[in-house]
Parts: sequence; C-alpha cells; structure tokens
Amino acid sequence: MAGRRAGLLGRVVGYDPEPQATAAAIRQGVIDEVAVSPETAVRGASLALLAAPVRSLRPLLARLAPALAPDTTVIDVGSVKQALVGAAETELPAGQFVGCHPMAGAEFSGVVAADADIFAGRVCFVCPPQNARAECIAAAHAFWIGLGCQTVAIDPAVHDRLMAAQSHLPHVAAFALAAALAPEMPFLDNTTSVASPTTSLRDTTRIAASGPAVWRDILLANASHVLPLIEYLGGRVHEIARAVAANDGEALDRILSAGQACRQRLVKE
Amino acid sequence: MAGRRAGLLGRVVGYDPEPQATAAAIRQGVIDEVAVSPETAVRGASLALLAAPVRSLRPLLARLAPALAPDTTVIDVGSVKQALVGAAETELPAGQFVGCHPMAGAEFSGVVAADADIFAGRVCFVCPPQNARAECIAAAHAFWIGLGCQTVAIDPAVHDRLMAAQSHLPHVAAFALAAALAPEMPFLDNTTSVASPTTSLRDTTRIAASGPAVWRDILLANASHVLPLIEYLGGRVHEIARAVAANDGEALDRILSAGQACRQRLVKE
Repeated sequence: MAGRRAGLLGRVVGYDPEPQATAAAIRQGVIDEVAVSPETAVRGASLALLAAPVRSLRPLLARLAPALAPDTTVIDVGSVKQALVGAAETELPAGQFVGCHPMAGAEFSGVVAADADIFAGRVCFVCPPQNARAECIAAAHAFWIGLGCQTVAIDPAVHDRLMAAQSHLPHVAAFALAAALAPEMPFLDNTTSVASPTTSLRDTTRIAASGPAVWRDILLANASHVLPLIEYLGGRVHEIARAVAANDGEALDRILSAGQACRQRLVKE
Repeated sequence: MAGRRAGLLGRVVGYDPEPQATAAAIRQGVIDEVAVSPETAVRGASLALLAAPVRSLRPLLARLAPALAPDTTVIDVGSVKQALVGAAETELPAGQFVGCHPMAGAEFSGVVAADADIFAGRVCFVCPPQNARAECIAAAHAFWIGLGCQTVAIDPAVHDRLMAAQSHLPHVAAFALAAALAPEMPFLDNTTSVASPTTSLRDTTRIAASGPAVWRDILLANASHVLPLIEYLGGRVHEIARAVAANDGEALDRILSAGQACRQRLVKE
C-alpha cells in the first residue's frame, strides 16, 4: 500500500499459504494477482519481498533460488538478521539477497491491519551479505527510502544484539507478565465492571498481543543474543521476589533504583 | 490545582518534609500557606489529604490523631489499602479516616509535574474503615466527585488484590526489565545515533521511571497479594528461558500463546 502510493511499484504478485490472506489483499487492492506458489510469484520480478516468519526464510530462499533471475533483488523484513544473512550467501550464490528490517510495526498482523503510513520517518536497517550485488544493495536502499524510511547499514550481529535489548527482551517481559496473570483472570473478569485496565497494565502488556508463532521464531533465531538477557531478567524478578519476601527495603530500593536509572538512560525525557 | 479549579477548597495549608517542595507549591499557587509540621497543617481543617509513601501513613495517622478535630475528614491517596484501613480504626478511634485511591497518576512526581486534568473521568476507590463516620465517608466521595472522578466503594482486600495484578506486578515487570538491560547500557548508549528506542521498549519500561522509594513501600505493603504474582512472573520468565535454551518451539509457543490470550482477555480491542 505504501509502495503503490509512492509510485514505486508496477504489477504486484502475491503469494500466501493461506488463500484467505491473498483474497483479502486482492479485495483491498494491495496486490494485482495471486500466484499459486512462491516460485511463480517471484518469476520475472525486479523486486521480491519476503514477509514470512523468521525461521522459514532460509528454506524459502533455497526454494526460490532456481526461480530467481540474477537481477531480481530479494529483500526480507525479518527481525533477526545474522544467521539469515550468512545463509543467504550459500542459498543465493548470485548475490541477489539484501537483509532488511524496517523499524515499523504493530502488535496486529494480517492485511486487514495494514497501514500505509507506518514507514514514514522510521529507520530501516539494511544488512547485505558479503556476496550481495551492488545493484541489489542500491535497489533495497532505494525501495525503503521511497517508502519514507531512513536506511541504516548495520552489521547483522550488531543488529541482532540491538534488537535483543530493544525489542526481543521487552516482548519476553510482556508475554511473561500477561501469562503470569492467568491465575487471576477469573477474578479480573469480575472486576471489569468497577475498574477498567490501568494504563500501566495496558502499556506493559500491549506487545503481548503480538503473534506467538512469529515471536517463537524470533526468540529461537536470536537465542545467542536474547537468552542471556532473558536469564538476567529472570534474575532481577527473582531478586525482587526475595527482597519482598524478606521485607528487605534496602535490597528492593537498590534494584528498583537500578531499573529507574536504566530507564532514564534509555529514554531521555 | 484540580480542587481549586473546581471551587472545592478554601484556604489550603501544605506541609512537606522537603522545604523546596512547599516553596515550589507556594510559587505555583497550589497552596496558600506552609505549615511547620503535619500537626499544624491539619489543625482546624475540614479536609486533610495525606499524600505520603504508603508505609509512612500509619505512623502519620498516629502522629496526627491528637491534633485532629472530630469533624475533620482524613483521606489518603495510597496504592495499598488493607493494612492501612485496618490500622486507622486503632489510630483514629473517632472515625475520621476514609481510605482513597484515585486511579490517576503518572511516572513523574513532585508539584512541578502536577496536572489539574488528571482526575477527570477516572475511578477513585473509596475504602472506609468499619468505624468511619458517615459524614466523613460522604465528604470523601463528594471531594473526588467534585474533581471529576467516579467513586467506587470497594473492600480493601479486593482493592489490594486488584492493584497487585493491574498495577503492582506491571511495575515489577517494568523495573526488572529496565534493570536487566544494565549490562547492555554501554552498548546501547553507542547505538542511539542509529536507532532511537523502539516503541516496544518505551512502552514496556515507561513506568520504571516511577520513584523507587514509593514502589518499594507499595510492594512491601502489599506483599501478601503481590509476592505470589511476582513468583509466578519469575516462573514464566524461567520457562521462556528454558524453552529458548532447549530450542523447544512447542513449549515456547505454549507460553507465548498463554500470554497473548491473557492480554486479549484483559484488554478488549
């Protein structure tokens, strides 16, 4: 939708394993044509955009390789880059792949939740593999810039470490917090007449509305960067529990103050 | 500020252990007079509003008791009610106290962060002790209604259980998440030129900017309700860590799906 509006696109061919998804995309005018397979979708394309769960991208590259012309630029929008960018050198030896990650999204998914304004003014990380063709790298940058993004070339490992802290760990915290309220759900159901959810609860759990399959894949694909942070988060929660159980105000103050200091350093207000 | 604008107040006398706080309140026209002690502040008052850390409220009631007239209504704005409301029966046998908790606030504090619009349309919980005088209960309701709140009479134990889930546990999650990023702060400092904090990170850590001393007191005062939830949160984080470490997609999917289901049940969108 954003690409059409910006006049970047010719004919758009879409494929999705769910026929309802492509049917909705046709109805909304987001795509012009439905392909019967990923291979037919990319045949003859100047640009192929892969929007698929992170762990399915490598097999998808392998499957598409024989169908791709050497001058087709292949980009993705996955949240984890290091393993994929490495694998792309093997899967697409002709160098058509350029890893991309626009910093734009929402906790909703599907074409019905699509928003053509989502890219304006946002950063898009661009991670080409070693073997990427210069024309493909340029085409990837041009596409995102055309959508209104600011492109930032970044090392895939630095990208993944940054995302582990800025996005993946916050999602773990939000999912775990929401899941931790499961035993209180019947009680909370009965209180909605007197008290709507607080802003605190809404904000801290908002991203727990995101798709579990997408986030399962992201966390597993970025395990090397995110697992130490998840363990560290568990440690901090455990320390708070221990301080509350022991009525230890000093220990509790120390960890809450550390949290406040990090928040203030992360987000200058 | 909200009370003045609503024409609810006569002369306003303020006391704060920090002289800068009352000086700022005078400058901003929030109070008319600075008292030298809590006792002198409440002497002859029709309404005494105690805005102090949760754990200091019981000693404050004990200290104020001899200075209070029988027809002074004493209210507070603390986030935990059960222990305080119980203690108030002993500390104020004349029945002037009515526990209150307006569902309005922000992660900022101090008179410079004051906002006269904060109460409009919000719920204010009202928890009178068994011995509360009917006129004091009525005065408490009238005050909050005058500020634009909807008052909700609630059992103090139900209030504390509700707040443990809707506010106290989310604060624990936000403080723990922000604190868990401490080891990554030098790395994150160096990335701010390429990537501002994501909306995910901003939203999930927003309330970690709140005052550590205030939240230390709240968590300790509501330990009986919040500690089981903190332990449950730690358990969920640990389960996610274990699933990621074991590359166990099914287990990870199960817990993320549970989190998503709770979020969708908590906040209907």
